[in-house]
Amino acid sequence: MASDIRASALIAPIHVAEYLARRLFEVGIRAVHGVPGDHNLVALDYLEHCGLSWVGNCNELNAGYAADGYARIKGISTLFTSFGVGELSALNAIAGAFTEFVPILHVVGTPPTYSQRNDRQLHNPLGNGNPNTFTDMSRSISCAVVALSDPADIPDQIDHAIRECWVQSKPVYIALPADMVQQQVEGDRLRTPIDLSYPPNDPDKEDYVVDVVLRYMQAARNAIILVDACAIRHRALLETHDLVERSQLPTFVSPMGKGAVNEALPNYCGVYAGDGSDDEVRERVETADLVLSIGAMKNDFATPGFSYRVSELSTIDFHSNIVRVKYSEYPELRMNGVIRKIVERLPQLHIVPGPTPSNNIPFHRRDNREELTHTWFWRHMARWLQPNDIVITETGTPNFGIWEARFPPNVTAINQVLWNSAGYATAATEGAALAAQELMTLRPNRKLRTILFTTDASLKLTAQEISTMIRKSLTPIIFIICSDGSTTDRLLHRPEATSTTTSPWRYKDLIPALGAEKGSFQSATVHTRKQVQALFADGSFNEAKCLQFVELRMAKDDAPVGLRAGAGRKEHQDVQA
Amino acid sequence: MASDIRASALIAPIHVAEYLARRLFEVGIRAVHGVPGDHNLVALDYLEHCGLSWVGNCNELNAGYAADGYARIKGISTLFTSFGVGELSALNAIAGAFTEFVPILHVVGTPPTYSQRNDRQLHNPLGNGNPNTFTDMSRSISCAVVALSDPADIPDQIDHAIRECWVQSKPVYIALPADMVQQQVEGDRLRTPIDLSYPPNDPDKEDYVVDVVLRYMQAARNAIILVDACAIRHRALLETHDLVERSQLPTFVSPMGKGAVNEALPNYCGVYAGDGSDDEVRERVETADLVLSIGAMKNDFATPGFSYRVSELSTIDFHSNIVRVKYSEYPELRMNGVIRKIVERLPQLHIVPGPTPSNNIPFHRRDNREELTHTWFWRHMARWLQPNDIVITETGTPNFGIWEARFPPNVTAINQVLWNSAGYATAATEGAALAAQELMTLRPNRKLRTILFTTDASLKLTAQEISTMIRKSLTPIIFIICSDGSTTDRLLHRPEATSTTTSPWRYKDLIPALGAEKGSFQSATVHTRKQVQALFADGSFNEAKCLQFVELRMAKDDAPVGLRAGAGRKEHQDVQA
Repeated sequence: MASDIRASALIAPIHVAEYLARRLFEVGIRAVHGVPGDHNLVALDYLEHCGLSWVGNCNELNAGYAADGYARIKGISTLFTSFGVGELSALNAIAGAFTEFVPILHVVGTPPTYSQRNDRQLHNPLGNGNPNTFTDMSRSISCAVVALSDPADIPDQIDHAIRECWVQSKPVYIALPADMVQQQVEGDRLRTPIDLSYPPNDPDKEDYVVDVVLRYMQAARNAIILVDACAIRHRALLETHDLVERSQLPTFVSPMGKGAVNEALPNYCGVYAGDGSDDEVRERVETADLVLSIGAMKNDFATPGFSYRVSELSTIDFHSNIVRVKYSEYPELRMNGVIRKIVERLPQLHIVPGPTPSNNIPFHRRDNREELTHTWFWRHMARWLQPNDIVITETGTPNFGIWEARFPPNVTAINQVLWNSAGYATAATEGAALAAQELMTLRPNRKLRTILFTTDASLKLTAQEISTMIRKSLTPIIFIICSDGSTTDRLLHRPEATSTTTSPWRYKDLIPALGAEKGSFQSATVHTRKQVQALFADGSFNEAKCLQFVELRMAKDDAPVGLRAGAGRKEHQDVQA
Repeated sequence: MASDIRASALIAPIHVAEYLARRLFEVGIRAVHGVPGDHNLVALDYLEHCGLSWVGNCNELNAGYAADGYARIKGISTLFTSFGVGELSALNAIAGAFTEFVPILHVVGTPPTYSQRNDRQLHNPLGNGNPNTFTDMSRSISCAVVALSDPADIPDQIDHAIRECWVQSKPVYIALPADMVQQQVEGDRLRTPIDLSYPPNDPDKEDYVVDVVLRYMQAARNAIILVDACAIRHRALLETHDLVERSQLPTFVSPMGKGAVNEALPNYCGVYAGDGSDDEVRERVETADLVLSIGAMKNDFATPGFSYRVSELSTIDFHSNIVRVKYSEYPELRMNGVIRKIVERLPQLHIVPGPTPSNNIPFHRRDNREELTHTWFWRHMARWLQPNDIVITETGTPNFGIWEARFPPNVTAINQVLWNSAGYATAATEGAALAAQELMTLRPNRKLRTILFTTDASLKLTAQEISTMIRKSLTPIIFIICSDGSTTDRLLHRPEATSTTTSPWRYKDLIPALGAEKGSFQSATVHTRKQVQALFADGSFNEAKCLQFVELRMAKDDAPVGLRAGAGRKEHQDVQA
C-alpha cells in the first residue's frame, strides 16, 4: 500500500493518535474531555503516555461545556466524541463556544474510511447515503473542519486545525477515522512547534491609526473605556490593563467583560449593560464624547437586558481583525499592537471621573429583611471573594446578580451571557476546576478557588457532572440559588405559569448519591443573611480542601436589579411587536 | 396590516398556538415534552386548555428521548424547544428518531419574524447573518421543515407537517416565531380532521405482486418470515400478525423487531441477528429458500453483532413504499395492503418447523454460580414478564440480553439498536411510562407496566430524567445492571482501559435526592440468583403502585451471548482493516 511505502521513508514514524496527542500537550492541554464511543476507544489509549489525562464526562453536552470552561482558564481545550450520537449531543456546547470565541478542538472518532468509501454500503445510520452529513452539521459552528484520510497529509491537517483554533479562538472539527488512528506519520515534525503567532499588523497602517486615535483621545472632554469579552478571548488583557492603568480613564466592562480588568483600580466604574445598568453607570457611558471600546462582542441578537445606546459617532472599536474609528474602518489590524502603541504614546488627557461602584448596599436599596435578597447577597459575597478566584455564573439570576459584585484583583469570571444555555455553568465548572487544579500543581503556593453560582432551575440540566468533579477530586464551591424554578422566566412571562416551576430536589443528598464519600465534601443550607455572614466567616468553610455545596434559599419575590430592568425592556418590546 | 384585514374575514378566528395545540390533541397527543425557553413561553400557555399537559423535562436531549418513547406507545409525539440552545441540544434525539422512523413534531420557538427580517440586525448569536442556520442543521434529520411566517398559510403548514410526520413516520421541524403565536387563523378548519391515511396502492399492481409472491411461497420448501422494526413503525402489525398466525411459517424477528409478533405463538422461532444469533436460529434463517422479510430496517452501518447473511435471491422484502421480490422491484406499493391480500389468498404451504426458543437455560450453558450472569438473568426475567408489559432496553448489555427472553403475548419492546445512543432508554422510559399512564386512565382495568433495563455506564447520561418520572407520579420499574463500567466497551476494546470505567454512584440514594418522598418509591439491590428469584416472587414488589428501582450487581466477567458473538466479529473486522 502507498502509505506503507511512504512510512518506510519516515525519519521518526509515530501513530496519528500519538502525533495528535503530542501536539495537544504542546499547546498546553493536559486533560482531554469527552465520552468514549465505538470509534474513539483506540485513540484514547494514546493519551496517558503523552502526558494527557482522560476526563470521561457523563455525557457529551456536559463534556463540551466542561471543555469550554477548561479552555477559558488554560487558553485552549479538546473534546473527544464519537461519530453521530456522540458529536451531535455536543453541538449545543460547540455552538456556544463558537459564539463566544472559545477555542475547542473537537476530535470526532468516525468509522473507518474504507467503509465510507465503499459505495455498496450505506454511510451513516440516517440512510441518506451522505457520509458527511454529521460533519456538515458542525460546519456553521466551526472555524475549520478537517477530515483526516491520508497519512501523508495528516500532520499538516492537525497542525493547521490547532493553529486556526488558537488564532481565531473558535472551535475546529477534526474527523479521525478509526483506520487512521494507528497509521504512521512523520514524528520528526514535532521538533518544530506549531506557529501560534498572530499575523503581524502592517506597521505603517498601525502607526496611522494610532495617530488618529490619539488625536481623538486628546480632543475628548469625557472619554471612557468600555471592555468586552473579546479582549479576553483574543488575548489582549495585558495591553488593556496597561491602557486602563496608565490612562486613568473611567473604565467600564460589559457583562461578558466582567473580570477583564482589575476592578480594584480607582478608575474602575462598573458594569455597563444598556438599560440593565445602574443609573449612574448608564448616564456616564451614554454621555461620554468618546468611547474606547475594546473587544466588543456586540451582537444585536435579542438578549434580555442589553440595549446599548452608545453612538458609533463617538466610538472607537478595537477588534481582533479591525479597528473602527467612528465610521472609518481599518481592516486587518489587530487591537493588541494598536493598543500597545497607544499606551506608549499616551498624550495628556482630560479626565472626568466616573461612578465608583462599591460592595456596600446603596442607601435607597437597604431593607431590614432577614431573608436573602439578591442585592444583599451579591454585595456581601463580593467582599468574601479573594484575588485569583475563578467565578462562574449561570444563565438566569447569577448572570445578572454578579454585576453588583465589585471583584478583588485578578478574578476570572466565566459566564455564557451571549449564547445563554441553561446548564452550561455546572459542567463548565468541572473543566475550570480541573484547569485550576493543574495550575495549582505547577505552583502549589497559589490558591485558585473555583466558585460556581447556579440555580435550582438550571442545575438539573447537567447535574450529573458533579460526579466527574468528585471522581477527579476537584474542590469547587458550588452555590445553588433555590427559588422554586426560573426567576428569569417568571419575570419575562407569567409568575404563575407551570412552565416556570421545577421539580424540588434534595440537593444535599445529591452529592453523596453521585459518589462522594463521607468526609470528602461539605454542604450547607442557608436561609438568612445571618447564616450567610456566619458561613463566610467560618474557617472550616473557607479553609476546606474539598468540594463544597451551599444551598441558598432566596426570597422568591426578588431578582437582581439588572434582570428586572432587562425584563422591563423585554415587556416593552413585546408590546411594540 | 394585511393579516388584520384577513383576520376579520375568518369564520372562527383562533390563535396559531391554539390551532396547533388542537391539532396535536386530534392526533392523539395528550402530553407535550420539552423545556421552556425565551421564545416558547407564550405558546406553552395554550396547552392546558386544549387538553394537553406540559411535561417540562430536565433538558432538551432528555425531552427528545422521552418524546421518542412516548411516540412509540401513542403513535406520535411532540417536543417543544427554543431557538438555538434548546433545539441544538435535542438534535441527537431527533436524529435517532429519524433513523428509527419515530414520528416527533419538533416545535421550535424562534425570535419574532420582524427581527429576522430586519437587515440591520444580526440574525442569530453565531453572528453569521443567516437566520436559518439552526433550522438548516435539522434538515437532514427531518422529513419536513416548515417555518411559520404568514398567518394565511399557517394552518396549511401545520396540517401538512403533522400529516408528513405521521405518514412518513419521521420527525418534522416546525419553526414557530414568537410574533406568530397569537396571530389569528381560521379555526373552522378544525372541523375537518387532518387526513392521515396512506396513499392507496394501485389495485392492479397490488394484485400482480401478490400473485408473484404467492407463487414463490407455494414453490418454497422451507420458507420463513423475518420481521423487523418497520413493521412496527409503519403500522403493519395487524397484517403481519395474521400472516404469521395463518401461514404458520417459522417466524423470526430482528433485534429491533422484538415485540412485533406474538412470541407465544408455536411458530415463533427467536431473534435473528446475523452472527450474533443463536446457532440454531442462524442456521434455519440462512438456509431458508425463501425469506418473507417484513419491514426490514436494514442498514449496513456497522453495528456490532449484525452481519445478515440472507441472500437477496431468496428474499421478498415488504416495505412501506416498495415491495422487492428477489431482484424485481415494485415501487409505490405499501406492504400493508399487499400482506393483507396474501393472507386472504394463502395457498397450501410446505412448512419445515424452526427452533423453539425457551426461557429455560440450555443444558450447555448451565452453571452453578450464585452470582448473576446474563443468560441466567434474562431467561428468569422473561418468565416474570406479563402480557401488555412495555420493556425498554438500553444500548449495551440490555439490548443484547433481551434477545434471550421469549416474551408473553402483546409485550411492546422499546430500544434504539440502530441509532444506539447511550442514555436513550432512561429518558425514553419517562415518555413511555407517561403514555402508559394515559392509556390506563382510559381503561383502568388494564395493567401496563413500564420496565426499564439500563446499565451503570448509561444511566449517568440522562439520570436526572428520573425526577420527571417522580414529579409526574409515573411508576416504571427500573433495573440497573451494575458492572463497574461499560461491558460492551470492555469487550470491543481492552478490558483494563480506564476509558471503560465509570464513577460509582449510590443508586439507592439517587431517587430521594431527585425528589421522591419516602413511601413514594421502592428500591432493592440484588447480588445473587436467589435474591432475584425472591424479588420476582415478592408480592410487595409485583403489586407496588409506585416507582421501583432495582440495582442488579452482575458478574463483571460475563456478557450476553449475542454481544460476545458480535464482539468476536468486530475484532475480526479490525484485523482485516
